[in-house]
This record gives sequence, C-alpha cells and structure tokens, in this order.
Amino acid sequence: MATEKARQVSTICFDALGTLLDPAHSFAHLESAFPSRGTEIGNLWRSKQIDYSRLRSMSGKYADFDQITSDALVATFAHLAIPIKESDIDAAMDAYQNCAMFPDAAKLLESLHQPWAVVTNGNRKWIGPMLTGAGVEVSDSHLFTSDQVRTFKINAPLYQLGWEWAQGASRSAISKEDVLFVSANQWDAIGATWFGFTACWVNRIGQSPEQLGVRPKFEIRSLDELVAMDIVST
Amino acid sequence: MATEKARQVSTICFDALGTLLDPAHSFAHLESAFPSRGTEIGNLWRSKQIDYSRLRSMSGKYADFDQITSDALVATFAHLAIPIKESDIDAAMDAYQNCAMFPDAAKLLESLHQPWAVVTNGNRKWIGPMLTGAGVEVSDSHLFTSDQVRTFKINAPLYQLGWEWAQGASRSAISKEDVLFVSANQWDAIGATWFGFTACWVNRIGQSPEQLGVRPKFEIRSLDELVAMDIVST
Repeated sequence: MATEKARQVSTICFDALGTLLDPAHSFAHLESAFPSRGTEIGNLWRSKQIDYSRLRSMSGKYADFDQITSDALVATFAHLAIPIKESDIDAAMDAYQNCAMFPDAAKLLESLHQPWAVVTNGNRKWIGPMLTGAGVEVSDSHLFTSDQVRTFKINAPLYQLGWEWAQGASRSAISKEDVLFVSANQWDAIGATWFGFTACWVNRIGQSPEQLGVRPKFEIRSLDELVAMDIVST
Repeated sequence: MATEKARQVSTICFDALGTLLDPAHSFAHLESAFPSRGTEIGNLWRSKQIDYSRLRSMSGKYADFDQITSDALVATFAHLAIPIKESDIDAAMDAYQNCAMFPDAAKLLESLHQPWAVVTNGNRKWIGPMLTGAGVEVSDSHLFTSDQVRTFKINAPLYQLGWEWAQGASRSAISKEDVLFVSANQWDAIGATWFGFTACWVNRIGQSPEQLGVRPKFEIRSLDELVAMDIVST
C-alpha cells in the first residue's frame, strides 16, 4: 500500500539576501580591506542594517534598503572606532552588490516545477541587478521589493505582495498555507509563519531557535534538502 | 542685558529601563551565577529582548514584556550553549526585577518642578513594582505601559499615551515639541524625535551615533546635566 503523499505547496516565495544570495564575497572584501576585523565589521553591519529596517518600519520612516545598508556601515565603523574614507564605504557597498548565488540555490531553481517568486527587503533598483548579476533569473513580475510598499518584512505588506502573486499564479483557489516561504533568516521565517504561510527556515549556520511562541514548519540546513521534500515538485 | 532664556518644556516623559532603572544588579547576578560569562549573557539577553519586542510589534503579536524578557533569556542561553535549569531563569528574572534607581535619576526626580511621567515598554504588573521597589515614586496615572496599547516603542501608540497625558498636565495649549522625552536608549530617543517630541538621549556609555537621518535634540552623559539645562525647571 502506498503511503499517502504530502500535499504539495502551490507556489514558493524566496527571500533574497542570505537565502539565494551569499554574502561571503562581501565578508572577504571586508577582511582584506580591514585585516582581522572583517567578521566583526560584517556581523555588526548586518545587525545594524536589520535594526534600521525595523526602526524605520515601526515609525513609518521608510528609506531604500541600499541607503539603510550604507548608513548601517557608516555607523558600524563609528561604533568600532575604525577610521575610514568615503571610498571605503563605496568599495564595501560594491563588494556587497557583487554577491554570488549559493550553489544549492542555483541547483534548486534550475529544477523547480512550481511557480516561484522573490520577496525581499531590498529595493528594486538595487536588488534587481544584484539578483541578475548573481544569475538568479527572476522577471520583474516575480520580484517583490520593499519600495513597492515602503516598509520592510516582517511587517505584513511585503508578504501580502507575495500572497497576491501566489493566488494569481495558482490554477486553483489556495490558502496561505499552500504558499511555501523560504528564508535563511529565522526572523523572516517566523514572520512568514505569523502571516500564515508555510515557512521553511534554511538554517545554514546552525542557529539555535528564537523563543517567539512559533516555529517555522520546516527547518533545513541547505536548499538541497528542499528537493527531497514531498511538498516541492522538481 | 540678560540673555534670552530658552523656552522651558512643559512636561517630561522618562523611559524606565536603563534610564531611571539601573540593570547593573542584574549583570552582577549573571556574572556570579555564570562566572566570566555575565556581560556576554547580559548583552545578548538585552539584544534579544529588544528584537523580540520589535518583531512582535511589527506583526501585531503582542506579549507582555516580562514574558518577552524571560523568552529572550531562554534563547540567550540556547544561543550560547550554556546548560541551565528552570530555576536559573527564575533567579535571573528576580535579579532583573530588583533593579536599583540610578543615583542621578533619584537626584533629578527629587528636584524636578515640571510634571513628569514614565513611558515604558514594560507591562504594568511587572514594571510597576520594579519602579516602586527602586524608589521611583510614580502614581498609576503617570505611568504608561505597553500593555495599554499592546505594542512597543518605537511604534507610535505608546508615545501617544505620553502625549495625551502631557496635554492634560499642561496649563496651556502645547505642541509635541514642548514635551521633553528622556531616554538612555538611543533608538528610543530617535523614535521620540520621529514622533515629534523634543528628545534627550542620556548616552550613559558613550555610544556612537546611529545613522537614521535624525539626531535627538539633546545628548547628555548623565541626568545630572539635565538639571543645568535651561529648558528644565528644578
């Protein structure tokens, strides 16, 4: 007797930064420009970038994510008391812009049968070329960005864009649970869960779970594992 | 010829945790319970506590701040892979609850002529006894807490409670700029600035400025400096 097959999701939404796009190149640049400080700078930069997106979301003070990212880097150097020239910011932003695609993402996207889209905190003018440059072939109509709603995840409006797209992309009526939201950011997977999506957290670096009263339905270490999951069609 | 006197603010709102209440006792407890790890635990705990309040605010998933604080501590120990017993959480929460008042806060509140209130992310049942225990004499009608609006600063509703109180407490019509909002949390002083208050950041630990496009109007190192400011009446 065949075991019952898990219901497949109808559509998939991917986060971009850290999920499809690998920031390793950016960290390597920082390490070479500021020997032995690269990881420290990179981690604080990322932390401030996220903080700024949340603070601006909470107060309705939207600014484009590339601006926030550059602001966060300036504040990072100030915090670490590392003297810089303006060209240091430009060089770090350029390196960040030249992210590569994670190999597991490339392999997955090539073989994926379900319709998929990208839902990112990046602003379109900035993240569009980053995705294209990294080889993520996503059309404008399948890319949802913060500048469209002038706020950031995990505020609902950006997930809502993905949800509206997913309903249009499905051949039949679907519920939010039929949308798989894939993110390497635990907070994003939790936000997607709160929104109602089925979330898959790609826990690339083996983080411990946050205590926010919910867990993403799926937790994997690499996108390779997604291929083997019954809910995904490849 | 007398120099023109700066216009005094009509009312003052204080943040509680880190501004009036000193967390040093809590850090000391952590250091004694987990030798050489106290600062690391305390810093990550505070960081996760803030993160959780923001994520829950952004998604409308309010939980009381004492719950968030306890959850953040559980996640902190998990992140640092420090094995704990449930009694460790209770002991740390007890130590946190027994914050003392900063000496500069005690001195200021004693001599302050303007009406003042407390506007805090804490929930009333938890922060009320903490304030009283530390000797901050604030009546229920001058204490504004997150459970009243089921969200956290820097979302507007909590500042709005302070603003409504300030209007009632003033003898004449005032604008938001006539309210001085005092916080040792830079992000809170920025949020208050965005809300429209005149903000004073008590930069107790000499932090570098965040890059969010605005600065609090005043920056001081200790509440002692507030007494000397023309806008405050003591």
